[in-house]
Amino acid sequence: MLDKAKNLILPSRRSDVPPFIVMDVMAAAAQVEAQGRHVVHMEVGQPFQPAPKTALEAARAALSGRIAYTEALGMPSLRGRIARHYADTYGLDLDPARVVVTTGSSGGFMLAFLSLFEAGDRVALANPGYPPYRHILTALGCEPVLIETSAATRWVMSPEALLAAHRDKPLAGLLIASPANPTGTMMDKESLGRLIAAAEAEGIKVISDEIYHGLDYAFAAETAAKLTDHAVIINSFSKYFCMTGWRVGWLVMPEALTRSVERLQQNFAISVPALSQIAAEAAFDGRDEMDAVKHVYEANRRVLVDGLPKAGLDKFLPVDGGFYLYADVSRFSNDSLDFAKRMLNEAGVAATPGIDFDPVNGHNYLRFCYAGSTPEMHEAVQRIGAWLNR
Amino acid sequence: MLDKAKNLILPSRRSDVPPFIVMDVMAAAAQVEAQGRHVVHMEVGQPFQPAPKTALEAARAALSGRIAYTEALGMPSLRGRIARHYADTYGLDLDPARVVVTTGSSGGFMLAFLSLFEAGDRVALANPGYPPYRHILTALGCEPVLIETSAATRWVMSPEALLAAHRDKPLAGLLIASPANPTGTMMDKESLGRLIAAAEAEGIKVISDEIYHGLDYAFAAETAAKLTDHAVIINSFSKYFCMTGWRVGWLVMPEALTRSVERLQQNFAISVPALSQIAAEAAFDGRDEMDAVKHVYEANRRVLVDGLPKAGLDKFLPVDGGFYLYADVSRFSNDSLDFAKRMLNEAGVAATPGIDFDPVNGHNYLRFCYAGSTPEMHEAVQRIGAWLNR
Repeated sequence: MLDKAKNLILPSRRSDVPPFIVMDVMAAAAQVEAQGRHVVHMEVGQPFQPAPKTALEAARAALSGRIAYTEALGMPSLRGRIARHYADTYGLDLDPARVVVTTGSSGGFMLAFLSLFEAGDRVALANPGYPPYRHILTALGCEPVLIETSAATRWVMSPEALLAAHRDKPLAGLLIASPANPTGTMMDKESLGRLIAAAEAEGIKVISDEIYHGLDYAFAAETAAKLTDHAVIINSFSKYFCMTGWRVGWLVMPEALTRSVERLQQNFAISVPALSQIAAEAAFDGRDEMDAVKHVYEANRRVLVDGLPKAGLDKFLPVDGGFYLYADVSRFSNDSLDFAKRMLNEAGVAATPGIDFDPVNGHNYLRFCYAGSTPEMHEAVQRIGAWLNR
Repeated sequence: MLDKAKNLILPSRRSDVPPFIVMDVMAAAAQVEAQGRHVVHMEVGQPFQPAPKTALEAARAALSGRIAYTEALGMPSLRGRIARHYADTYGLDLDPARVVVTTGSSGGFMLAFLSLFEAGDRVALANPGYPPYRHILTALGCEPVLIETSAATRWVMSPEALLAAHRDKPLAGLLIASPANPTGTMMDKESLGRLIAAAEAEGIKVISDEIYHGLDYAFAAETAAKLTDHAVIINSFSKYFCMTGWRVGWLVMPEALTRSVERLQQNFAISVPALSQIAAEAAFDGRDEMDAVKHVYEANRRVLVDGLPKAGLDKFLPVDGGFYLYADVSRFSNDSLDFAKRMLNEAGVAATPGIDFDPVNGHNYLRFCYAGSTPEMHEAVQRIGAWLNR
């Protein structure tokens, strides 16, 4: 029998999820800086720019009133504005009743997973992928099923690989991300459509994480909402709109699911931070400013795609969208955690080891985020080159 | 076999939680107002005042910089400031390492439940109680065990009732709330200590919801953190500090559990809204302003305690703390939902039916929130009296 006093401070088994390692790298980088040294930050997926001026101005104005609870599904005006964004960007007529405002994409994942899946359900994810997908699913009692990707499918999941996993043991869900994190790869409209159709024909529920939409360089990203009415779309103001710390995002849900999600949100969150919702609505009026930021990322991408091979890192996945470059460092190390630590300490460049994103092959990879300034990207290439060729 | 296409839009069974009815009452009240009629709002537990000026000023200043992710456990300066609050308020020396900043108390519940309990675990709650306790536990696969309270124990849970439920089938956890919602009743230091000791002697993990601390009228509330190092304390800036829409709160955890909670927060939230954290830290410097707001609630409480019996509602639970009065309306109706609807439509006073808080006897009760202005409280008493005596 378990000691009763010890039991009091024993964490649950389901809370035993791995850390999101990038946040530990952030802490290590802060320590290096505390020693008075300069670090080029390429570890966290966070824009160097603040929110659009329109958003900041709206927040400032709102501070003269009371910041109160809002409707659980979000402020009606914001839901309407998000729906209009789908008309403007994708030519899609979307009913605002299908839009749910969430506390960042993080809040969206929890609502989506809880409302779609039972404990025990299997959910397919591309490997490598965003670590919280796996860890939230696990903590909620679901089983993440990692599907390996390869150069043959441009590092995205193929319908064949999905169906093979489904034959192995039935899948309840599929999570797609395009542009993807950490790889930066994108699915074109046709490959996205084929994968969704393959899943839905088998009754597999589809979630499409579109948080990096707006940051596409190779070709225009397509929303899954245009290809099916049944998928759950996840998005956020954190990336394109540079609003990470505001914690505001949204879902597009099939109409039949919105009341379930409303009740979950009433109980799990009451409502989403009101000031962030007000700022988010105004952010849509700051697209010119944000497009200028996107042009900085495009310049950064060119600096890395040209410069890293000269520095010695010449193997990486297609850099289609988002703001990540996923580099194979196996020529130098097959311990990406150690490699990242040494690069931070010896070269002053912080990046995230692939093991955060891929438990299988991540020891051979590093993720570089290029959402910083262009001079920093030049500095990073120079430092890495000098370090690898020392 | 389930139709595959239908399966795509089928909500999970675990998302089938009841609504938080108060939010539906809010929507109904808004409809009455849309007809041009005035409503006294006593349904939502939301202060009529904005956040302290110190908090608003800090938020305004922060808007000139980038609002970025913070540490997953919260800004170190805020965690330190919260720890100092325990020294100032309770004379307790608390290590800031035990403080975890959360996205409102809502975020705190999820972290606490996930980190303490497995699916299938039984958790004792006083009935009546805050509805999301039950619904979050259910959605996370736990079993809420409702313990009836009565006048004999001043409407709080007794150690005897807890232990009887534990003998029936072992409990993994106990959630205590003092001041309580919806009842407004409080436990004194001795009864709180006895209940915690009874639970911990049996290895039952204790969570103490202290969100209404600071709003105590009958006697000073004691923190469970002073009585044991093993309990998880939940608190928030929503009530005393009038910061509902900011969604910021905190946990005090046993040190052995903080790393589990940090990993959960990294994955489930990344971090808590940064602007809200900055404002929350400054809110502690606005206590004089908030104490003046508390004096308004004290005046409101007197208006209701004196006025409601004259209006016809003469049976209610002790109004010790928080800002709720829980009235027995069975003289008039045993359908509190219908009674609340009629009172809203015919008298223009919105309150929440007891069925939101108590699935057993709630049909006989209404919850009145007195966090509005004092003239509104006078108006409510007058309207209810005229309506019941028409």
